[in-house]
Amino acid sequence: MIVTMQPGATLKEISAVIRSLEGFGAQPSISRDCGCTLITAATSKIPIEDQQLRSLSGVRDVHQDVHPFKKVSRDYHPEDTVITAGPAVFGGGRFCVIAGPCAIENEEQIDGVAAHVAAQGAKGLRGGAYKPRTSPYAFQGLGVPGLKMMRAAADAHGLAAVSEVMSISQVAEAVEYLDVLQVGARNMQNFDLLREVGRTDKPVLLKRGPSSKIEELLLAAEYIVDAGNPRVILCERGIRTYETATRNTLDIAAVPVVKQLSHLPIIIDPSHAAGKREYVHSLTLAALAVGADGVMVEVHPDPSKALSDGRQSLHYVEFSALMGDVRRLAEFRAPVGV
Amino acid sequence: MIVTMQPGATLKEISAVIRSLEGFGAQPSISRDCGCTLITAATSKIPIEDQQLRSLSGVRDVHQDVHPFKKVSRDYHPEDTVITAGPAVFGGGRFCVIAGPCAIENEEQIDGVAAHVAAQGAKGLRGGAYKPRTSPYAFQGLGVPGLKMMRAAADAHGLAAVSEVMSISQVAEAVEYLDVLQVGARNMQNFDLLREVGRTDKPVLLKRGPSSKIEELLLAAEYIVDAGNPRVILCERGIRTYETATRNTLDIAAVPVVKQLSHLPIIIDPSHAAGKREYVHSLTLAALAVGADGVMVEVHPDPSKALSDGRQSLHYVEFSALMGDVRRLAEFRAPVGV
Amino acid sequence: MIVTMQPGATLKEISAVIRSLEGFGAQPSISRDCGCTLITAATSKIPIEDQQLRSLSGVRDVHQDVHPFKKVSRDYHPEDTVITAGPAVFGGGRFCVIAGPCAIENEEQIDGVAAHVAAQGAKGLRGGAYKPRTSPYAFQGLGVPGLKMMRAAADAHGLAAVSEVMSISQVAEAVEYLDVLQVGARNMQNFDLLREVGRTDKPVLLKRGPSSKIEELLLAAEYIVDAGNPRVILCERGIRTYETATRNTLDIAAVPVVKQLSHLPIIIDPSHAAGKREYVHSLTLAALAVGADGVMVEVHPDPSKALSDGRQSLHYVEFSALMGDVRRLAEFRAPVGV
Amino acid sequence: MIVTMQPGATLKEISAVIRSLEGFGAQPSISRDCGCTLITAATSKIPIEDQQLRSLSGVRDVHQDVHPFKKVSRDYHPEDTVITAGPAVFGGGRFCVIAGPCAIENEEQIDGVAAHVAAQGAKGLRGGAYKPRTSPYAFQGLGVPGLKMMRAAADAHGLAAVSEVMSISQVAEAVEYLDVLQVGARNMQNFDLLREVGRTDKPVLLKRGPSSKIEELLLAAEYIVDAGNPRVILCERGIRTYETATRNTLDIAAVPVVKQLSHLPIIIDPSHAAGKREYVHSLTLAALAVGADGVMVEVHPDPSKALSDGRQSLHYVEFSALMGDVRRLAEFRAPVGV
Repeated sequence: MIVTMQPGATLKEISAVIRSLEGFGAQPSISRDCGCTLITAATSKIPIEDQQLRSLSGVRDVHQDVHPFKKVSRDYHPEDTVITAGPAVFGGGRFCVIAGPCAIENEEQIDGVAAHVAAQGAKGLRGGAYKPRTSPYAFQGLGVPGLKMMRAAADAHGLAAVSEVMSISQVAEAVEYLDVLQVGARNMQNFDLLREVGRTDKPVLLKRGPSSKIEELLLAAEYIVDAGNPRVILCERGIRTYETATRNTLDIAAVPVVKQLSHLPIIIDPSHAAGKREYVHSLTLAALAVGADGVMVEVHPDPSKALSDGRQSLHYVEFSALMGDVRRLAEFRAPVGV
Repeated sequence: MIVTMQPGATLKEISAVIRSLEGFGAQPSISRDCGCTLITAATSKIPIEDQQLRSLSGVRDVHQDVHPFKKVSRDYHPEDTVITAGPAVFGGGRFCVIAGPCAIENEEQIDGVAAHVAAQGAKGLRGGAYKPRTSPYAFQGLGVPGLKMMRAAADAHGLAAVSEVMSISQVAEAVEYLDVLQVGARNMQNFDLLREVGRTDKPVLLKRGPSSKIEELLLAAEYIVDAGNPRVILCERGIRTYETATRNTLDIAAVPVVKQLSHLPIIIDPSHAAGKREYVHSLTLAALAVGADGVMVEVHPDPSKALSDGRQSLHYVEFSALMGDVRRLAEFRAPVGV
Repeated sequence: MIVTMQPGATLKEISAVIRSLEGFGAQPSISRDCGCTLITAATSKIPIEDQQLRSLSGVRDVHQDVHPFKKVSRDYHPEDTVITAGPAVFGGGRFCVIAGPCAIENEEQIDGVAAHVAAQGAKGLRGGAYKPRTSPYAFQGLGVPGLKMMRAAADAHGLAAVSEVMSISQVAEAVEYLDVLQVGARNMQNFDLLREVGRTDKPVLLKRGPSSKIEELLLAAEYIVDAGNPRVILCERGIRTYETATRNTLDIAAVPVVKQLSHLPIIIDPSHAAGKREYVHSLTLAALAVGADGVMVEVHPDPSKALSDGRQSLHYVEFSALMGDVRRLAEFRAPVGV
Repeated sequence: MIVTMQPGATLKEISAVIRSLEGFGAQPSISRDCGCTLITAATSKIPIEDQQLRSLSGVRDVHQDVHPFKKVSRDYHPEDTVITAGPAVFGGGRFCVIAGPCAIENEEQIDGVAAHVAAQGAKGLRGGAYKPRTSPYAFQGLGVPGLKMMRAAADAHGLAAVSEVMSISQVAEAVEYLDVLQVGARNMQNFDLLREVGRTDKPVLLKRGPSSKIEELLLAAEYIVDAGNPRVILCERGIRTYETATRNTLDIAAVPVVKQLSHLPIIIDPSHAAGKREYVHSLTLAALAVGADGVMVEVHPDPSKALSDGRQSLHYVEFSALMGDVRRLAEFRAPVGV
């Protein structure tokens, strides 16, 4: 941490900064140059708040160097983390496809989708049992009966079961049925929920909030890892911008940015990003080419009858065509395969 | 609801739309014009999902008319709602000032602030006992002991106690000590929490999420009202944009927009919007002039030592000056006073 | 400027930074602290590009201190600039109202509006003769005949004539007829146009681009002042965000931010920000209360027949009501009056 | 166009809408349903402004169907447009790489880069002779001497010369030296400039404004085509969002959206989107996979000494590595090759 004092800062002001830093357990040292005093401190035991220092009299600027997200940072863990959840593997050069409906509707639906996507090479089955809905009057999901249907379908077709938990009270029941616990975009900063899934032994799929910075996504992951669960898979699903041609704006560059900053795997959700099924194919190929560790796509036996998000769900035939291209493109990328 | 079919839509496609609408309990009727078929339906008992209709073959456009947020809508409740929480009153032409530190730090601090802000005309006392923090390593709040300190300070100085609850488990303990339960911006779409505070008999201060549309804020309020609690106070606290000169961009127009769409009171949080104390004074006056029902501002006895958000907290002397201008400007606005 | 080297930076890397800074005419000095080398340089004659230094090997961070917008900065010109354009005065505590139609349509229309707004206390007349339109097929304005109509109407009713110039070729003819040259939001970074209006002796009303930072607005103003014209009036007219309830998001905090950074006057355009006439009244009062030096509002004798932007134009009776409130509120603010 | 009247709309109000539509040359017809009157009109000769209709008394909603960008729309021109500019071809399945420095600095620099990028398979040479700079004090480009250097370098190495024109006055001289005229992001809505390049016979590379919607980009292209020049190449270069990890947010989905709406080719500029060279490689591969018709990347012999944008320029060795991967991945995509 470097605190730059204003040119005419008094000795009293400089002392106040030093005392403040010492109060945080740091051992600051001083240098003078060009009329400015610079106060430097190595990382202290407890994090130092920028704003507190900035508000001290005579301070011109504060430059934070300490790592805010040590446990998920590549600086402290240079090699990629590879996460295995049943047949699904995230990281290590693979491109893992999770597919399924937005919401679990009934046994026939989820089993049918599972059969189709498994046959095409998907390794994970998605489907919501608890649905966060903007309106209180929209379909809210089947709950535990839905989780049971998903478990049965995943087992029958050799897939990892992936589904969202929306509140602490759901975590205990969800771990009974799922291979991967998903934390949804709206809950990315629901810190109690992050800690709760951090106390389980299941991999967590953490979706980026629609207005969250990449750094905030990594800090949210740090909550989970800090609570004891190192198996976090990040997911970019589009951010909120002024553009309305797509439901969200897919921030494809989040993949190389995360790969540079963190050792955790990151996948893409092109369905929620696009909001329209006709863009999902090309965005999935972009995800593969940019270096993502997988995708999560919505597939429905009959999108026109889907209880939610039908507009962005692929038909079976579209998913088959997509998987054909994914396999061909994956050869370009890596020896590991899909 | 009006569904516009594509020019060449077949009878089969038109029938499918009608059957789909009937499945929602609606009674659609048809008209033809200019080569297009229009299918119109009055409001059904259950909400109709746009996307499901849009994905039907032959559909060109769907125009939703049903109110998604009936209970908070001014259409169904034309007169303003006035909410009383102890000495604080929101709505009805008043301008209610809630003030206090970002976080409750100790008895002396919260009592001192309460004494000062009450003497200047504030009616509510703010202060966090549970602090949602982006980083797991930042100060997380005092919890129940903090709530007790706040209750004592509020009682001693005749103020309403306002504080945030972050999770369902905190609600039961918080209602013991607070007059107003705050739902923070990060939790605006934590639907389980919305329902839980909706089951209490305390007014709820609902902050707009940093990337939420005004309509989504109203839908979140609808969750609370639908759960049984009609006393919701909305709060605009700045949205996330590309501009970095302020912490967030205060969407001042949210006040007239909300006033047009809803009967609920709305206040402004200029401190979190600005992120810098020097802008809080003028933004508070703008809030008053634009027609807001109040503000919530951060005040600290010594901002340079605040455990969080010191940069945006007012000094006592700044708060006194602000309240002087608020009183003068309030005379311009209304006969009701501050 | 402070360049922080990485902990293990070599002497060669440090020398390269010093040589680079010297190449810009700076005289750098070195200090060492805590394992890091800091290289500091006072402002050089030519501006130093951050990115060039950042890309040098061994550099960890670059902290720019030099003022990028010296001539419009309050640091170099502490007192407010007051700009007079005929009967209109911007700055110095006044609240100057510019009003008129979006586009000049014919003599009767512009003269009628001028008569009405002048009678209500407006000091400037707005109206487009050249209209920048997103679509090539929309109404493009009357050109010079429109400017002549505006000049006549402004003279007849004692108003300053304010209108937009869209290209360099229009500047010479426009200065013949106008008191204030407006540079529109889409042209805020049309640097050749900025320089051209900077070579005239007319005040320039510079509108903030819909995705421009406040700092970029000030840099655009610097172009005009640097070209020789110190009389620049800034205008905040809403920025582009994800919110769709209003046409743009009025960044009301831009007023105190600009007042802190610059000595130039700043006004608000609530009509383009809101996009709907029913929000213009309250936003104008907010502009006054927040400390803006004026507003520019759209008024039309019959908005339903306006050739453009009728949805956001005030009717005469609405404008009269607004000016009544503006006069009352202005008494609160300053002794100078409207 | 469909105008939906409010439930209780009077005959007088309905007549006013019909007269208004007839005033635009449309032939409206009426239908009634469910208490609402719907007025429908086929496309009129002149465009109908939504807002004008919306502001009429009794109107509830207006639904525009007419095409705002006919000439660039795929609806009116289903097959892809292929544009040839010397050795560079855009569209038709190829992936065309334009490379070069941000700014032309001297003969040696531009010739050296041209030699390198041509040897690696690039077909176009980029380099700025006129530089739009946010600050008036930054390096502004060499002008015509720079264009001459670029022409010589392009000829020597068999490349198409691509450079930006910033104002109408530069167009006449620029067409003497260039194969493709670039309109920069800041000028995307400089409508006079769009028309001026629309009157030349050179292909135009039109960059998307940093806060422009895709629809606005297509409307800007429509200006150029409407002025007589059908050869427009679109370029997505990142949009402005709240995320700061990259310079802009690359809207990769703009490619499939544009491909659906328009027949024009679209390329990606990963350098300006990322702002950091380490992300350019993966974003280029994403561009190829998503279906873009090419990329424009910054390459510099010594980025640390670049006069602008050095931080995002590739070193020669990085560009060579990139082109190797581009060739391999292009085989996956198409039989046409790079």
